[in-house]
Amino acid sequence: MERLERHASFGGWQEVYKHQSDVLKCAMNFSIYIPEHDLNEKLPVLYWLSGLTCNEQNFITKAGAQKYAAQHKVILVAPDTSPRGDAVPDDGAYDLGQGAGFYVNATQAPWSENYQMYDYIVHELRTLIDAHFPSSRVQSIMGHSAGGHGALVIGLRNPDLYQSISAFSPIVAPSQVPWGKKAFTAYLGEEQSLWHNYDAVELIQSGTVKQPILVDQGMEDSFLEAQLKPELLVNACKKSDYPLTLNLRAGYDHSYYFIASFIETHIQFHCAHLK
Amino acid sequence: MERLERHASFGGWQEVYKHQSDVLKCAMNFSIYIPEHDLNEKLPVLYWLSGLTCNEQNFITKAGAQKYAAQHKVILVAPDTSPRGDAVPDDGAYDLGQGAGFYVNATQAPWSENYQMYDYIVHELRTLIDAHFPSSRVQSIMGHSAGGHGALVIGLRNPDLYQSISAFSPIVAPSQVPWGKKAFTAYLGEEQSLWHNYDAVELIQSGTVKQPILVDQGMEDSFLEAQLKPELLVNACKKSDYPLTLNLRAGYDHSYYFIASFIETHIQFHCAHLK
Repeated sequence: MERLERHASFGGWQEVYKHQSDVLKCAMNFSIYIPEHDLNEKLPVLYWLSGLTCNEQNFITKAGAQKYAAQHKVILVAPDTSPRGDAVPDDGAYDLGQGAGFYVNATQAPWSENYQMYDYIVHELRTLIDAHFPSSRVQSIMGHSAGGHGALVIGLRNPDLYQSISAFSPIVAPSQVPWGKKAFTAYLGEEQSLWHNYDAVELIQSGTVKQPILVDQGMEDSFLEAQLKPELLVNACKKSDYPLTLNLRAGYDHSYYFIASFIETHIQFHCAHLK
Repeated sequence: MERLERHASFGGWQEVYKHQSDVLKCAMNFSIYIPEHDLNEKLPVLYWLSGLTCNEQNFITKAGAQKYAAQHKVILVAPDTSPRGDAVPDDGAYDLGQGAGFYVNATQAPWSENYQMYDYIVHELRTLIDAHFPSSRVQSIMGHSAGGHGALVIGLRNPDLYQSISAFSPIVAPSQVPWGKKAFTAYLGEEQSLWHNYDAVELIQSGTVKQPILVDQGMEDSFLEAQLKPELLVNACKKSDYPLTLNLRAGYDHSYYFIASFIETHIQFHCAHLK
């Protein structure tokens, strides 16, 4: 593991590391914010999953989350959104291939060799963080857009690992919208019943454990009607009596200006469940 | 004037505009954050000048300043750092030409036709902001690195226009350091006595009016010893009995992670003087 960046930030350290991923079979970057803490003190870990086209940089440069992570003494980890590199399959489009791993374990050629982002986040990266940083091994997960989808799916499928789940502008039902259908067809194949393990709306209706979920959605988000469809999550949660807090924010769009405006409330939410 | 961007942010609006500058003889972008405010309410204006290589985007995406501007009800304006465009002279280096206007009025060919950033900031942009936005016409100025130099020089030379001055990691004595010597030789010519109007350390020692100045400087800043030299500002202020607050911040570097960590205190400082 190689440290690429280290910056003082709100009394702690914003760092970026590169490591060789066994699961993804390529070199991967991740960023980590480590608040000021006492020697031997262990801190909870909050994962952030970014959306299409992003890498480990977007969240740490634009969200302004370090201030609140420092206040609440929680580690923030933001991985890249897909395997990377010249040897990794890619696609010319922004919504498939590198930058668009969709947090699934691909089963289809040519993607299955590298595109195992679900296992990377749930197992390999978590193990790495717990081994090398002052982690208390208590964690929660959040994300944005395709990363909001990732946070919901990974959180819901691993209630023993993640105390709480939150998302900004998530793709809540990828099986039903263009971004998800395209990605799932490529990564998982045509058989739609195999998509349900990666679809939050399906998982909500089939799950038994109920972690708290917080979702913020901007009402001027240009992807709202075609790709995000928060009403599908609301309906699924109603049917299953699932505890969802959904904030519809008038005037806000899909950008990091929206995330920055409400990241404090998401970090507060998680920290209430990370104690 | 054309609006290029508009994003809801902390209850207000982060916008980006393009306009034709008469002073710079090219199209220019600037960004403006307008807090939520009552109809007909006028707000003070705080200018931010960015450093080398930056444009109107860096501050608004990375500094996290909107939260505090919203709290204190102050408009934030961040211009570009130089004239721009194919018809504007440029240099291959990052520290001369486009992205490196140094906030001077150039007198030397080929720069003098467009590189009039001092007049652009002090006159043209300010007049435009006051005419088109809810400005109370009370303003202060701050900046980073070469923009910290710009804020100090523009503030000190116009005590009637700017209530207070602050800077992160400023070039305090451009006449004495490589970045400044290179830029001033190109823009202003070899005669060093003509540089003093654009050198904060010289202006401090020749001025009479004393606006409050706040400077933050990271102690792990890689430009500290060769380019920034805050001790020259400290000495000049001591000689002139000038009220300087200088915070030396252990561990911090030259990046926006440093700025984000302390921008709240700078906005508080200015707002105390903008009432």
